[in-house]
Amino acid sequence: MNFIEKLTRATRKNNSLLCVGLDPDQEKMPENVSVAEFNRAIIEATSDLVCAYKLNFAFYEALGDDGMSILKQTRDFIPGDIPVIGDAKRGDIGNTAKAYAQAIFEYFDFNAATVNPYLGYDSIEPFLQYRDRGIFILCRTSNAGAVDFQALNTEIEDNKYLPLFQVVARRAGEWNIYGNIGLVVGATYPDELKIIREQHPDMPLLIPGIGAQGGDLALTVRYGVDRHGEKAIINSSRQVLYASPGKDYAQAARQATDNLREQINHIKKTIS
Amino acid sequence: MNFIEKLTRATRKNNSLLCVGLDPDQEKMPENVSVAEFNRAIIEATSDLVCAYKLNFAFYEALGDDGMSILKQTRDFIPGDIPVIGDAKRGDIGNTAKAYAQAIFEYFDFNAATVNPYLGYDSIEPFLQYRDRGIFILCRTSNAGAVDFQALNTEIEDNKYLPLFQVVARRAGEWNIYGNIGLVVGATYPDELKIIREQHPDMPLLIPGIGAQGGDLALTVRYGVDRHGEKAIINSSRQVLYASPGKDYAQAARQATDNLREQINHIKKTIS
Repeated sequence: MNFIEKLTRATRKNNSLLCVGLDPDQEKMPENVSVAEFNRAIIEATSDLVCAYKLNFAFYEALGDDGMSILKQTRDFIPGDIPVIGDAKRGDIGNTAKAYAQAIFEYFDFNAATVNPYLGYDSIEPFLQYRDRGIFILCRTSNAGAVDFQALNTEIEDNKYLPLFQVVARRAGEWNIYGNIGLVVGATYPDELKIIREQHPDMPLLIPGIGAQGGDLALTVRYGVDRHGEKAIINSSRQVLYASPGKDYAQAARQATDNLREQINHIKKTIS
Repeated sequence: MNFIEKLTRATRKNNSLLCVGLDPDQEKMPENVSVAEFNRAIIEATSDLVCAYKLNFAFYEALGDDGMSILKQTRDFIPGDIPVIGDAKRGDIGNTAKAYAQAIFEYFDFNAATVNPYLGYDSIEPFLQYRDRGIFILCRTSNAGAVDFQALNTEIEDNKYLPLFQVVARRAGEWNIYGNIGLVVGATYPDELKIIREQHPDMPLLIPGIGAQGGDLALTVRYGVDRHGEKAIINSSRQVLYASPGKDYAQAARQATDNLREQINHIKKTIS
């Protein structure tokens, strides 16, 4: 089963567009709980409420020597019917990109990965070769600095200009011969999300930026979903993981996940 | 001692602009040698001939669970007077970038890191806060796909257009308040290297792409160095590491390193 099929099944089974980002931050975690134990409890408490999980490599690298082993353990805790996105944002030249793709898709066995477009096609191609996996290309990121380059007018053809993030999305469309490309578009830029969804009606969109980052949930759902009300993977990390600082953290995470899922589903109803 | 001072001292002490890239590839390594052992032997055989070492994270991630531990061991094998660049090409939003910077500069204690500019200033700022470290921003990469976005005309001011890689270099110059920013410019694009050096006469340039990637060494040296014939960090990986497939690999690596160093120094003489 390829990534899109897996995503669609999980979305329908759990009636959810919500993705939980497993980004463990020891400063915010409850005391006396190991990262692996914390992640496992969060997964057990939420896996019937999500369409996917996303693991950002940075938070595991920051754990030192054991980081990659905890990343692997966490990935392996996740039930087989829920797709897992390796949020590594990699971008390197051909033979190096191949090593990254191998680590992410073979060693860790992620169902999808995020990649950075700055180095161009040959930095992404080794990922695309894994046809049953999803490749999310950073398009419009959720942070303030996204405007520094992504918003600049860029010449896509002679005397035809588009903001860089739209040029990236165009190229992503052209490169999508195996149908396994998606785009990352931040919830913090709803107008840009709307444009991308209009121009790419069938692509899965990975949408970070609700909650702590301040993205508007209603606009995110309205602009992010495809015509079937699907293929928007709305990520929440901090709002779910740190819903309670106490021993009831897993129960609180479940409640926060369910609330978000219900809010999203309620918004979906109002737009259809 | 900050990164630039450390780089300058190593450059002068070893009379070298050559950086050896420690990118272990088990398919090309001699048989019956562990990655850590291989790296240690390469370092011992070359540390009096280089201005820096560069470790690309991808090749260590591809090793699985032990990868990060071998990366750390390798970094720790390198003598304290040689600067070590963590080639991770990271780019993520603020709080995540902070976790990456912490891993690279605190846990691994690299003297410099490579970062990807696509996410803008706030993705790089957490790295810049480490004022004694070097931050190399990807500008014009050495791969064929570099042209896909980096070469596109981009509006830097009203109706003023520059190729994206030059816009990135401009912004890097503006962001360089602590004097710790450098740029990555591939040897495979000598015209672009010339432009970047002219516009940024004092910045250290990390230059991959000679050897296996086909960059012209003479043009790289001519266009890459600053007015003192320094601050060009010319990287070679495969040409050095796999100079011999046999038991004499370390000796062969030393010979290859010394040959490259001498070629570079010879070219330097012809241009001064």
